[in-house]
Amino acid sequence: MKCCDNIDARMVDETSINIDPIQVGGRLTPEAMKAMISWGDGYSVCDNCRKPFRLDYIQNPPLKEFHADLAEWLGMAQARTVPGARRAFQQVAGTYVEKGDPVLIGALAHYTSYLSVELQKGVVREIPKTKDNLITAENTADRIEDVIREFGTAPKLLYIDHVDYQFGNMHDVKGVAKVAHQYDVPVLYNGVYTVGIMPVNGKDLGVDFVIGSGHKSMAAPAPSGVLAATGERAEEVFRTTKMQGDLSGRTFGIKEVGILGCSLMGAPIVGLLASFPTVKERVKHFDEELANSKIIVDALRSIEGTKILSEYPRKHTLTRVDTTDSFDVVAQTHKKRGFFLSSALGKKGIRGIIPGATKIWKFNTYGMTRKQAEYVADTYLEIAETNGMTIS
Amino acid sequence: MKCCDNIDARMVDETSINIDPIQVGGRLTPEAMKAMISWGDGYSVCDNCRKPFRLDYIQNPPLKEFHADLAEWLGMAQARTVPGARRAFQQVAGTYVEKGDPVLIGALAHYTSYLSVELQKGVVREIPKTKDNLITAENTADRIEDVIREFGTAPKLLYIDHVDYQFGNMHDVKGVAKVAHQYDVPVLYNGVYTVGIMPVNGKDLGVDFVIGSGHKSMAAPAPSGVLAATGERAEEVFRTTKMQGDLSGRTFGIKEVGILGCSLMGAPIVGLLASFPTVKERVKHFDEELANSKIIVDALRSIEGTKILSEYPRKHTLTRVDTTDSFDVVAQTHKKRGFFLSSALGKKGIRGIIPGATKIWKFNTYGMTRKQAEYVADTYLEIAETNGMTIS
Repeated sequence: MKCCDNIDARMVDETSINIDPIQVGGRLTPEAMKAMISWGDGYSVCDNCRKPFRLDYIQNPPLKEFHADLAEWLGMAQARTVPGARRAFQQVAGTYVEKGDPVLIGALAHYTSYLSVELQKGVVREIPKTKDNLITAENTADRIEDVIREFGTAPKLLYIDHVDYQFGNMHDVKGVAKVAHQYDVPVLYNGVYTVGIMPVNGKDLGVDFVIGSGHKSMAAPAPSGVLAATGERAEEVFRTTKMQGDLSGRTFGIKEVGILGCSLMGAPIVGLLASFPTVKERVKHFDEELANSKIIVDALRSIEGTKILSEYPRKHTLTRVDTTDSFDVVAQTHKKRGFFLSSALGKKGIRGIIPGATKIWKFNTYGMTRKQAEYVADTYLEIAETNGMTIS
Repeated sequence: MKCCDNIDARMVDETSINIDPIQVGGRLTPEAMKAMISWGDGYSVCDNCRKPFRLDYIQNPPLKEFHADLAEWLGMAQARTVPGARRAFQQVAGTYVEKGDPVLIGALAHYTSYLSVELQKGVVREIPKTKDNLITAENTADRIEDVIREFGTAPKLLYIDHVDYQFGNMHDVKGVAKVAHQYDVPVLYNGVYTVGIMPVNGKDLGVDFVIGSGHKSMAAPAPSGVLAATGERAEEVFRTTKMQGDLSGRTFGIKEVGILGCSLMGAPIVGLLASFPTVKERVKHFDEELANSKIIVDALRSIEGTKILSEYPRKHTLTRVDTTDSFDVVAQTHKKRGFFLSSALGKKGIRGIIPGATKIWKFNTYGMTRKQAEYVADTYLEIAETNGMTIS
């Protein structure tokens, strides 16, 4: 089926249980879809833009109120919307990092953290993961000392993922931030797997910046994200332009430099806004999500040879699993080779795993009903049994 | 009417003839709307992302082909999509401009041009406009010489708007680029009012970068845009990451630094793609758009005291007009004051002008039918007559 001449219609979540590691927290709510249809034109929200001519001052739709609500919800002083979390990384790095400056990044961080430092020509130093794949306060302290020895200065910025994308492990943000602040290092909290998924309060965590992703975890269209800051840091990261035309004398009001004036118009901003009531509510029920996740994780664990590489018990619905000694053994002799697993799942209406993957792979159970979780768990067990694997 | 609890439904183009200066070229095609509904989830286009794991390599939807088509259509070697033209400015400035470096900008440029230089801590020097509000090759040459005298180096980059947002005037890009290249200055062509509106060929114009806006002129959702470059410049502006984790040894494949890896997912990219056939076709008929524009411009000119501030005859559908000596005279004594004009237009189903504006204002006739243009022209004349103004 085509949705237009040159594009197939997409029917993933309409026809399947989706366990894609990156997609499930970003699926649009019905409200976001309706808002997107109504406000889909790019400059739609500019209909009622009046002085001082900045997106976060627009009152209809209620963007001004939304920005204030966002900040409060995250326990921060101010918030802005941005075209994706990576653009928030860029904005923060652009504020604090100059050529040659050291920046500390947890070694499990997403590649965009690294690239945002590369853009500034900064130098990345990593906080190593422990053997349990955790980023700890202790290792942070050691690495800050290392940086001081190497550069003669503390890191200009520190990135810490609350829940990393590789294992879905939860790291000690509070401990890391406490150490960093002993050296006056600003702390960037990467909440792309937490903001919109579980309760997040930047003040309690003691971080300087909270960054979330609309399309990853806030049920909003891409590219969208949020950058929130403490009062002190807001003045730096949300600084307004001081530019002046040398001949024309032109100045540019209260446009913010880091965000290049106005940020998120049209579908992404109204989508964020429309989903916000649902998102605020759903974070309170993350325990139910974890319970669903446990059903599937435990089913996989019961298949002999399968290892859960993520921390266990799970604290997040994103899980990394190693089936080299289970499903991949079957793949060696199966006529479909590694594709037997995704194919068998597909036939049962389960999608979102990279076709062919039978060694190390990830899945995310977020947003399922209990019944769907049980169905997915049963399906994995059924596939294992059908292929002669042992279930303990 | 609400589209969801916290957002009113927007019904501007459904109920009115819209002459908003910034909105009309970005209104979605029916194809873009359908594509957005089908692919609205943020990571939708990642369903079929395979090695080398970069958005512009995805084959379903046909993003790889689209990127190649875009480049060819613009007469450039390579193209990328970006979250808005301003992010393309940022990407180019980020490649060429360091702290204290001089950058030349046409004095009619959009504020985001200036801010993208401010982000790099560069120094803006302006090319002055002539008394006719044009940016010329002659003034460009003078200013390059000025910069060399002041900084001991030619500008690191030059921004030239093909059609500026203030007057909708068309500037001598070819002449400006020729001069700039005599000094080896890279030329950034700002085509936010031209790419998707009229034929644009970067090779013919002799520029290094062509930047367009999806939501301003390519009938695509916001934030979206295109950055195209010559072969030589593409290697610089689309350079891939060289970052490596100092402890983990992690590297990041062929992710591009300037765009932070992948750029435009979900609704904006499928919207751009879905509208592309229409957009490619419509640029061939810009003469019809100008003919419609002329009907309205000439009607306004015939109202005594009204001055067209843009160049005349018009070369673009965006026009700046001064009605201080016509409509604003009425406003002085009208019981609705300056709001009489927007109110009278609104009653006749014409929208998009800032309410209250009766002195200097802008409008854009792009996308109208001939009949709508005649209707708008007649409505202005009728309002003038009703208020006792003289029509010549």
